Amino acid sequence: MDAIDLSHHLSPTAAARTPSPLKSLMKYMSVDGMISLAGGLPHPSLFPFVNIEAEVYSPGIYLPSNTSESDSELLRFRVHKNGRADGQVVDLASGLQYGAFLRFLHKFVRTVYQPAYKNYDVLMNDGSTDGWSKVVNLLCEPGDYILLEKYTFPSTQAMWVPMGCKGVPLEMDIDGIRADVLETTLREWDITHPGAKRPHVLYVIPTGQNPTGCTMPITRKQEIYDICIKYDIIIVEDDPYYILQFDTYKLPTTGNGHAEPLPSFDETAFLDSFVKTFLRIDVQGRVIRLDTFSKTMAPGNRLGWFTCNPLFAERIIRATEVTTQTPSGWSQSIISELLHTWGPGLSGYLRWLLGLQSQYEIRRDWMCDAIAKEFDAKQEGDKVIVYGKGTKVKLLSFVPPRAGMFLWCKVHLSENKEYNNLKGVSEEPETAFEQKLWQEIVNAKVLISPGRFYAAWEGEEKPRNTAERDIVHFRLAFSMTTKDNVDLAVHRLAGVLHRAWELS
Amino acid sequence: MDAIDLSHHLSPTAAARTPSPLKSLMKYMSVDGMISLAGGLPHPSLFPFVNIEAEVYSPGIYLPSNTSESDSELLRFRVHKNGRADGQVVDLASGLQYGAFLRFLHKFVRTVYQPAYKNYDVLMNDGSTDGWSKVVNLLCEPGDYILLEKYTFPSTQAMWVPMGCKGVPLEMDIDGIRADVLETTLREWDITHPGAKRPHVLYVIPTGQNPTGCTMPITRKQEIYDICIKYDIIIVEDDPYYILQFDTYKLPTTGNGHAEPLPSFDETAFLDSFVKTFLRIDVQGRVIRLDTFSKTMAPGNRLGWFTCNPLFAERIIRATEVTTQTPSGWSQSIISELLHTWGPGLSGYLRWLLGLQSQYEIRRDWMCDAIAKEFDAKQEGDKVIVYGKGTKVKLLSFVPPRAGMFLWCKVHLSENKEYNNLKGVSEEPETAFEQKLWQEIVNAKVLISPGRFYAAWEGEEKPRNTAERDIVHFRLAFSMTTKDNVDLAVHRLAGVLHRAWELS
Repeated sequence: MDAIDLSHHLSPTAAARTPSPLKSLMKYMSVDGMISLAGGLPHPSLFPFVNIEAEVYSPGIYLPSNTSESDSELLRFRVHKNGRADGQVVDLASGLQYGAFLRFLHKFVRTVYQPAYKNYDVLMNDGSTDGWSKVVNLLCEPGDYILLEKYTFPSTQAMWVPMGCKGVPLEMDIDGIRADVLETTLREWDITHPGAKRPHVLYVIPTGQNPTGCTMPITRKQEIYDICIKYDIIIVEDDPYYILQFDTYKLPTTGNGHAEPLPSFDETAFLDSFVKTFLRIDVQGRVIRLDTFSKTMAPGNRLGWFTCNPLFAERIIRATEVTTQTPSGWSQSIISELLHTWGPGLSGYLRWLLGLQSQYEIRRDWMCDAIAKEFDAKQEGDKVIVYGKGTKVKLLSFVPPRAGMFLWCKVHLSENKEYNNLKGVSEEPETAFEQKLWQEIVNAKVLISPGRFYAAWEGEEKPRNTAERDIVHFRLAFSMTTKDNVDLAVHRLAGVLHRAWELS
Repeated sequence: MDAIDLSHHLSPTAAARTPSPLKSLMKYMSVDGMISLAGGLPHPSLFPFVNIEAEVYSPGIYLPSNTSESDSELLRFRVHKNGRADGQVVDLASGLQYGAFLRFLHKFVRTVYQPAYKNYDVLMNDGSTDGWSKVVNLLCEPGDYILLEKYTFPSTQAMWVPMGCKGVPLEMDIDGIRADVLETTLREWDITHPGAKRPHVLYVIPTGQNPTGCTMPITRKQEIYDICIKYDIIIVEDDPYYILQFDTYKLPTTGNGHAEPLPSFDETAFLDSFVKTFLRIDVQGRVIRLDTFSKTMAPGNRLGWFTCNPLFAERIIRATEVTTQTPSGWSQSIISELLHTWGPGLSGYLRWLLGLQSQYEIRRDWMCDAIAKEFDAKQEGDKVIVYGKGTKVKLLSFVPPRAGMFLWCKVHLSENKEYNNLKGVSEEPETAFEQKLWQEIVNAKVLISPGRFYAAWEGEEKPRNTAERDIVHFRLAFSMTTKDNVDLAVHRLAGVLHRAWELS
């Protein structure tokens, strides 16, 4: 089954792009015996690089089952200007490795995501920020409304806000965007937004969402997808944390340790452990998926990829030709060779990912455990409810994330005296209290990001304040910390909260 | 002297950009003892790279005076994840090297270009294609007219054509755009384009122009600049071939060799040999200059830089945050370390550039010499006139370029019988004949690019045909060839032309 025709979604600029006339000469370059004086490229013999050699970790180094010597060994690879030492065609000068790299990405998409239609395409970008900016230019016109999660990543909004676009925030539960809210929003659009063009793009971060940490199961995705067919919506699945999925967190009952030993590496079981993506159910080709190597290899690579229908892919290529052209050849060569060195097919990379997951899972556990230690914490269904130490005063609640880097903390204000005093005098008591509490936390030398930063932008006329009644949020990132720092930070945080609620 | 206020040139989108709220947290991160749970970065200990090591040419390898052993030696450098072996702070993980790299670029701009105002800024981009796309988004609105050379690089036009912008082609002579034509165009704008907004952006490739190969001397730049002050125009100086300037070509009198020995390296003399740029006379900050490492280090680095006034620089940074973010960390680390390895300050890089110039100069000479050999060529002032071998039939003429990679060949059609027959029957005999001649050249296995590809785009209603009467053009690139290939290509070309003019 092939993608359906979705060309009516293109922005006028994206629809109007044409290939450079110079590209029409390309086909002649491969004619046998042709001497080309047509291209304007510098001569590769004049590049100053002879070869680069890299020393890298083994893919098994972080595997929970890693006990063998070889998993801890460093590996080396070398990229030569004129072909690789072992005779395979890898070549800094002509960039022939790009083809091999694309084949890897195709294999990854085919194996891990299993798209539901046949003629999808895969193409590289300079990381997901670049990818999203290209998608906005592909689909959006000034003034468009964009459907998105109620809390979302502010930098992706910063792309379209200056274009005069506006967000349509959608209420979320622990599985992400609520399907009934999406349906109602679209069904009642002409009543709630008379005269405004109905949104045709849904932006969603489905796994370990930033900032809420929630992960959308495939059942919810299917409900959302069906509504998107009904109302002809393109889904942009921005999924940088997809590869960082972990087990459910359980409150520690004895000490901080987690008793169960982690499993050893089983590729099939590992692949089955991943939540299914929108691509898996995308029978029409209306999903644009964004993947990145930023979380698995380092953000500085500026390397990611799109998976989408061939019409959108072709338009993105035209846009890429006049903007970024191609990701850095160094990033491509080095990542490509690293993947090759790690092992045949996907096997090495998957081993690396499992190890990486265990590392981020440990970090999540450090943070949850530290909260359980500094406060009184109780598991209630999916949630952890946090009370002042030795009290019944509810301070915080959160759903321990099963993916990503963020713990999204609801702060319950109703038992705070100062907040209750503010309610009489301030128009936005939640915001006023959040700012004050945040400053006290910073004064105690813990930097966290305030929930209001993540509120969807609905235009100048609507203030960025989607606070729930008597609730504010903080986003705690557990990615960049050591255990000692997490313990100390949560200890400081607990001090501030207990004092602010007059519990100490 | 500081830049004047040019904020009225910003496009509405560029003017509306705001920093991400997350950036407001940055200042707290450096507070002593602060533990940050705010950023969403992956932990650098989990990047798979330990170090990379590169083997590179010595900067002196291509120096014409290179006779010493050390100039031919390969050099090595290593970038460690956690600091460089020699103790200097270079660090893959935190990217501290970016600061050192920017300092190099600032020093290069200050020393080589000597901008005429004080508070200019320097910032990196992902190469000049990316740079130009950011400039278009900074300054241009849909429907704008853009001033440009009559023949220009088609890919830069492909950026703004789909936005509905149009080019205003300016007649050129051997020094580039004619100042009188620019003045007349602007003075008479309201008469020639009633109701249309007057252009406020001039795009120019001043050195070794693509495709015409001409280089604009500082006297012409000053005339252009003065007009741009008068009519409030922003000049975009896209100058990728600036570093590839060479001596004037002289027709060989005896054989193919050039008798004069090339000079040895003298840094001051070398810097003096460069033509002065628009920056040198830019007292107001109305020049945006684009530089790139594509021609000196390899296009795959995707690394270049802007020099412009601080207001434009700040707006470009805001746009960069939501698109490319930063060039590849690999490209930055590797180029930065290469420059450091080549020698203190600018000295190593300048030695490399002199060697590179000599290599491209040799390639230009191969091509000009081959033409002189296969045809009868005569120097007339700045031009070389090319006749059929042993005849007085004028076939070609060109100005041997003093920079860049391109020889822009005028083909004189008036003595071609077939062309003269076409004149009676075809509405565009030049185009019709060019296409036919081009195909014959391709059939002889030489690929060159047709001059009409480079015509400025003036909108759908004006066909892309700026052919002069009885003249067409071909662009011959001499960058990618070996001497044998140039000789063979020009031999084949000569065969086609002699046959087409019935001279053989």
